[in-house]
Amino acid sequence: MTKVYSVAVVGATGAVGEQIILQLEQSDLPIATIKFLSSPRSAGSTLSFKNEDVIVEEATPESFTDVDIAIFSAGGSISEKLAPEAVKRGAIVIDNTSHFRMAEDVPLVVPEVNEEALRTHNGIIANPNCSTIQMVAALEPIRKKHGLKRVIVSTYQAVSGAGNLANQELFDQTRAVLDNKPVEANILPASGDKKHYQIAFNAIPQIDVFGEDDYTYEEHKMINETKKIMSDATLKVAATCVRLPISRGHSESVYFEIDNDNVSAADIKEILSTAPGIVLEDDPATQTYPQALNCVDKRETFVGRVRRDLDEPKGFHMWVVSDNLLKGAAWNSVQIAERLVALNII
Amino acid sequence: MTKVYSVAVVGATGAVGEQIILQLEQSDLPIATIKFLSSPRSAGSTLSFKNEDVIVEEATPESFTDVDIAIFSAGGSISEKLAPEAVKRGAIVIDNTSHFRMAEDVPLVVPEVNEEALRTHNGIIANPNCSTIQMVAALEPIRKKHGLKRVIVSTYQAVSGAGNLANQELFDQTRAVLDNKPVEANILPASGDKKHYQIAFNAIPQIDVFGEDDYTYEEHKMINETKKIMSDATLKVAATCVRLPISRGHSESVYFEIDNDNVSAADIKEILSTAPGIVLEDDPATQTYPQALNCVDKRETFVGRVRRDLDEPKGFHMWVVSDNLLKGAAWNSVQIAERLVALNII
Repeated sequence: MTKVYSVAVVGATGAVGEQIILQLEQSDLPIATIKFLSSPRSAGSTLSFKNEDVIVEEATPESFTDVDIAIFSAGGSISEKLAPEAVKRGAIVIDNTSHFRMAEDVPLVVPEVNEEALRTHNGIIANPNCSTIQMVAALEPIRKKHGLKRVIVSTYQAVSGAGNLANQELFDQTRAVLDNKPVEANILPASGDKKHYQIAFNAIPQIDVFGEDDYTYEEHKMINETKKIMSDATLKVAATCVRLPISRGHSESVYFEIDNDNVSAADIKEILSTAPGIVLEDDPATQTYPQALNCVDKRETFVGRVRRDLDEPKGFHMWVVSDNLLKGAAWNSVQIAERLVALNII
Repeated sequence: MTKVYSVAVVGATGAVGEQIILQLEQSDLPIATIKFLSSPRSAGSTLSFKNEDVIVEEATPESFTDVDIAIFSAGGSISEKLAPEAVKRGAIVIDNTSHFRMAEDVPLVVPEVNEEALRTHNGIIANPNCSTIQMVAALEPIRKKHGLKRVIVSTYQAVSGAGNLANQELFDQTRAVLDNKPVEANILPASGDKKHYQIAFNAIPQIDVFGEDDYTYEEHKMINETKKIMSDATLKVAATCVRLPISRGHSESVYFEIDNDNVSAADIKEILSTAPGIVLEDDPATQTYPQALNCVDKRETFVGRVRRDLDEPKGFHMWVVSDNLLKGAAWNSVQIAERLVALNII
């Protein structure tokens, strides 16, 4: 008899929650029962799952009784409070927030890179930051073959990464600019921060708040999570994270150095063309390269513009694009759930 | 008696031409007569200069008789054809196109970096590419003090760099997206290329056409022009150039390595705070950093987000923003004209 699972989604009404539900609907995960949980504010609303109505319930410790898999995407403080409660009741938690990511006993997993780490879980598995996931997915197959010494990334991040309200703000501001009306900014660059700036027709070099070392938390996440996922504390990672007037789809200009100086761009493209979860889109002759607009609703990570540094034989550029709400969040979480089942961990 | 000059602007009706006229109006260059030149199509229209009407004339070889300074911004083929004619008639040409930039006997000048090169001119002086200018302006004061080994840049470029029609296309597409109407793309990423893509709410990793090595010409320009302006063929420069849905103001994520490993971010900020043409905007505690929206109509290059690489003591990040139509084009050209006068070269 096939095992079946009881699944809960915490933060079901948010930007990522909506996508987790869609990914679960498309998944062949054997789901016996589904539960949608939220804050008291959103509880009581009705969502659909595989053509059946599901009433959203308030998330409480008791919500997790008899739940096998709980996917959290309701903010760090909710995860901090309720994830241990879910684990106490026997659930495996897949957490989309940054709260547990760097905890030593919590595996931080991108299945294409380190799914074996799932076997070491103690109840909580962390889903990495969106911008980290797509970058390591593209780097890992190259690292496996040629080693990896160093990464320098500049991101081009979409507004939906900051939630549905931020996305609405982008559209409202854009229309105001076109109509020569006053522009209001209340959310970006970081909803909890002191100042807010116009994102429409602008580029804001701040995602999340600043740390004491003048890096943003988003930059810290990319630097620290990449080392943890790749289990390489000696890997040099440098990151600049930038928010742009794009609704969905993160792009990244990824510069990396490998161990060898006799590898060609064609070799790198050959590796990427068969790598799991990666779609190589790279033909300058036909102007073929990944674009944010084209990645929406797709699970894969798209890579193009692969070329060797003209001055540094170990250095390469690539342009990495993925749907920040899917591989960057919802799909990677559901993929972790699928791998837990496939690897007989749950 | 003060010398006075006869000045001609070729391509006066274009996006950069308009700004050259505004910069000349604000300049204290002693202008005796002004001439606005264009293609036959735009000839006959009337422009204003210091509150007087000036009729735009068709640019011909004879247009340059008695002209002292001719500022060209009408495309490479016009410069190729007419700049030598202007020089033959005694004018000094300041050329905004890429046509002569890499010619050995043509100085490529950003006044804050290499104005002494103006003395070696043979009639033609080239104005560098917009994205190159602001980057070298920010790097040069650091290089002077600490040396410079390597630059890795990712650009965030505005649509106005591709001209007025591209800018209109951005606004038309944006409105179409907001109104759920079909989007037309006829210009970007490069007007002369085979395919055109939507720039509204997108990121396009192509500026100008591709070379045979899979780099774009824009990337070649940044790499080759930086070495030429800095007179350092050994400097390693790596570039990825990206077009974004921003009307005006180029931003750049500039990573650089200096010769020493005992320099702090505070040292770099100290240097930038007094560098010519540079405005340091760098205070994470108050979310102060340069933004494309804020640089419009300003001549300076704005620098912020200065921080040392957490893993590489010789490496630093900075975020460099400038008005691509001013320091990137019109102002740098007029500034060159002012320096020619100040240095008694003309």
